Amino acid sequence: MYKVDLNCDLGESFGAYKIGLDEEVIPFVTSANIACGYHASDPLVMDKTVKLCKGNGTGIGAHPGFPDLMGFGRRNMAVSPKEAKAYVQYQIGALEAFCKANGVEMQHVKAHGALYNMAGKDYSLAKAICEGIYEINPELIMLGLSGSEMIRAAGETGLKAAKEVFADRAYEEDGSLVARTKPGAMIHDEDLAVKRVVRMIKEGKVEAVTGNDIEISVDSICVHGDGEKALAFVRKIKNTLEEEGISVSPLSQIV
Amino acid sequence: MYKVDLNCDLGESFGAYKIGLDEEVIPFVTSANIACGYHASDPLVMDKTVKLCKGNGTGIGAHPGFPDLMGFGRRNMAVSPKEAKAYVQYQIGALEAFCKANGVEMQHVKAHGALYNMAGKDYSLAKAICEGIYEINPELIMLGLSGSEMIRAAGETGLKAAKEVFADRAYEEDGSLVARTKPGAMIHDEDLAVKRVVRMIKEGKVEAVTGNDIEISVDSICVHGDGEKALAFVRKIKNTLEEEGISVSPLSQIV
Amino acid sequence: MYKVDLNCDLGESFGAYKIGLDEEVIPFVTSANIACGYHASDPLVMDKTVKLCKGNGTGIGAHPGFPDLMGFGRRNMAVSPKEAKAYVQYQIGALEAFCKANGVEMQHVKAHGALYNMAGKDYSLAKAICEGIYEINPELIMLGLSGSEMIRAAGETGLKAAKEVFADRAYEEDGSLVARTKPGAMIHDEDLAVKRVVRMIKEGKVEAVTGNDIEISVDSICVHGDGEKALAFVRKIKNTLEEEGISVSPLSQIV
Amino acid sequence: MYKVDLNCDLGESFGAYKIGLDEEVIPFVTSANIACGYHASDPLVMDKTVKLCKGNGTGIGAHPGFPDLMGFGRRNMAVSPKEAKAYVQYQIGALEAFCKANGVEMQHVKAHGALYNMAGKDYSLAKAICEGIYEINPELIMLGLSGSEMIRAAGETGLKAAKEVFADRAYEEDGSLVARTKPGAMIHDEDLAVKRVVRMIKEGKVEAVTGNDIEISVDSICVHGDGEKALAFVRKIKNTLEEEGISVSPLSQIV
Repeated sequence: MYKVDLNCDLGESFGAYKIGLDEEVIPFVTSANIACGYHASDPLVMDKTVKLCKGNGTGIGAHPGFPDLMGFGRRNMAVSPKEAKAYVQYQIGALEAFCKANGVEMQHVKAHGALYNMAGKDYSLAKAICEGIYEINPELIMLGLSGSEMIRAAGETGLKAAKEVFADRAYEEDGSLVARTKPGAMIHDEDLAVKRVVRMIKEGKVEAVTGNDIEISVDSICVHGDGEKALAFVRKIKNTLEEEGISVSPLSQIV
Repeated sequence: MYKVDLNCDLGESFGAYKIGLDEEVIPFVTSANIACGYHASDPLVMDKTVKLCKGNGTGIGAHPGFPDLMGFGRRNMAVSPKEAKAYVQYQIGALEAFCKANGVEMQHVKAHGALYNMAGKDYSLAKAICEGIYEINPELIMLGLSGSEMIRAAGETGLKAAKEVFADRAYEEDGSLVARTKPGAMIHDEDLAVKRVVRMIKEGKVEAVTGNDIEISVDSICVHGDGEKALAFVRKIKNTLEEEGISVSPLSQIV
Repeated sequence: MYKVDLNCDLGESFGAYKIGLDEEVIPFVTSANIACGYHASDPLVMDKTVKLCKGNGTGIGAHPGFPDLMGFGRRNMAVSPKEAKAYVQYQIGALEAFCKANGVEMQHVKAHGALYNMAGKDYSLAKAICEGIYEINPELIMLGLSGSEMIRAAGETGLKAAKEVFADRAYEEDGSLVARTKPGAMIHDEDLAVKRVVRMIKEGKVEAVTGNDIEISVDSICVHGDGEKALAFVRKIKNTLEEEGISVSPLSQIV
Repeated sequence: MYKVDLNCDLGESFGAYKIGLDEEVIPFVTSANIACGYHASDPLVMDKTVKLCKGNGTGIGAHPGFPDLMGFGRRNMAVSPKEAKAYVQYQIGALEAFCKANGVEMQHVKAHGALYNMAGKDYSLAKAICEGIYEINPELIMLGLSGSEMIRAAGETGLKAAKEVFADRAYEEDGSLVARTKPGAMIHDEDLAVKRVVRMIKEGKVEAVTGNDIEISVDSICVHGDGEKALAFVRKIKNTLEEEGISVSPLSQIV
């Protein structure tokens, strides 16, 4: 039977600031990437988000990012592999405290924003992050961009890797995402987006921006929870996947 | 046989900023309170300090403080018990990551600066912090001011409590520290300071600032590592204790 | 002719985080208190908010707060008068840069949140803040709680003081606000709230929570801009004031 | 008569953390680049450093950097020109507050660390920063690397530019600094370093790392104040310059 995970970035509120429809979206996703206080979130938000996930049976993941709250972790920072490793360990540990306090297990780790993008292309950064995860808990699943250096580094480190795809993004022939600055980077037609994802799961193929089919491997689909439109799409993709006979399940049941 | 622990605040450097003679002082203390990134320290410093403790067999403790780097955690902040609990859990988790990565066990938790002082007098704050520790790991030792609300809260929470005293501070008759703003608050005579500590350990008594003896219970002595003078005093007190037949041992062998 | 200013806390967004309906509320208020990057806001938000005020002819004020982004500056912090003075100067200067860059004059300064509350009751803190303002620009108006230590300190420092009242808050007989934790602290009836404000302006009196009238002096009314309901109330109070023959004008035309 | 400025990064302490021998070095330099709270410094340190400069007649400059305290502003961050401009304006304004409060004029602005390096090579970033400075005060001198995009951008913006050189760094034939990672990047021989600087000032030439002479223009020499060795070098270079008949004067008397 076909299986896929739906993952979403959650727990991004901070102090008096609210981002994301966490309560509404959590029941529809199977894995949550929870911000850990560097690019977003704070201890109260982390505790609340872990409790929400626990109540909904959602897989819990740490979502470490750059120490750049003002930029929401979306700006490249020239950190060394050693710094990246230590920052990731710090943030995983901080979230792990709330997992322990609430009696749940952490399922996975997914890097956030600019750290995700940089490590997806830079093997030394990717390897340092994967080693950081492994040293804390070799059972943690590393969730990364399908075909990226992060997936390769996880494998060579001995971590289980989960490959994620984006329903709303076009792909180059080499399997990388079409840069947002290029025409055709985004798939705006929701029906087409869902159809592409179903094909990725069932056939392991997607049509690249060039028109040629490429092979792609999928364990998880990244969805968004930051608005009514995003929320409606999460519901739609979940329903369609189930109608297509694809079981929507947490990462821990997939990789 | 008499036993006592020597504890010291360590790992307080941050980025390009250095505080403390950590390398020099660690061999002489038995327990280290390591800052966790809120009032001081950063992930690289935490990793390095955990490694130093491991290499010297020093007991490792989390030293959570207020999110006030600019004030070094020394300024009272009107946080709620719920906030204090979450902040402490976050910081313990962060340090725990480096313990796991380095294959060592965390021994204890000691609140820092203004959080230590406030929780020492405010039972609801103390209880929230102790519950936060207990939820993460009920085996962690809570190191707090002898006679304070923190010791009482630890006991009622089910945590092992370790009572600390200060060699260089005078005591009121009720067992509290004489406020630094009052005359006679500090014991400047090092020989007298050491003599008082030996008596506390052997007789369970100390002369209060009023001239009357009071009872005091001691598991650990707090020493400082932020200068040559402090370092010399650590050596002196350790030697004298051993000459007096008092074994200087980590908290885990005492409480 | 009766005159009064309407002031509102604005420019409280931060990075990816949005708070407040700034664009909608600015046309209806005459003075804006703009956050300066310590408890809220960032340089891009400050620049944008100054431009919005300039376009609407709204008086611009610095709204300095505690360095506590996680607590939105709402938690008391035990800073010294010297620290408070320096923090206020730093923040005024930062906002002044955007005033200069946009070719507008800063009109006033109003302390934020816990700093406002603490300085309203602590003369030494109030005096240090007022001296900090005076040293930078003695023409700046200090906007503070009517009857508070801040008003007294401003007068003794040589600053023009503007007295603000809250439409939605009850008053004690001594002119202080009824604590939010007490019953009757909030005036929920909007018509009554507006009626009370009109009487404060025309008669210089308000009924205290005890039922007795007290004297109160009003230069400005504090309104909120953080939701549709708040926005509707701003429109309502502005219209009623004008119908009552009270000119709604910036502080610079009042004190 | 030959003239040159000696500039030094100062005011880099933060809260309980101390960096730099500010009191000792200020009497020997003619211009101080004062950190503004983003990569280093805090309001108390800024106020104290401005007072020190005033007492010694040292020219005061803002030293804005990236919002990266943990990395001391030394790590490249992918900020947009618009962000860089706003960050620089914020920091200049903050320092200007302490200049006004102490009755002194700000002389110049010099970008710090990674912002200095990035803007030295990226014209759009350099232009945005220079426009940010100009909008606040067109009389401020922009101090930048001799031959860099910052110098070009300052000129095209209408700002006075001051060109700085490094006594302890080797130059490529195109006038750029030899990267620190390359052999021969640093000039360790102090006598040679001073000799090279004297020649730059008198002849407008320096021997590049290739062995060929290149032209170089000098208004200021960057020196360091972060240790006894650095301090001794500052004294040495100042004495030698004066013996060579070169007047050591603040930037405001040079450009």
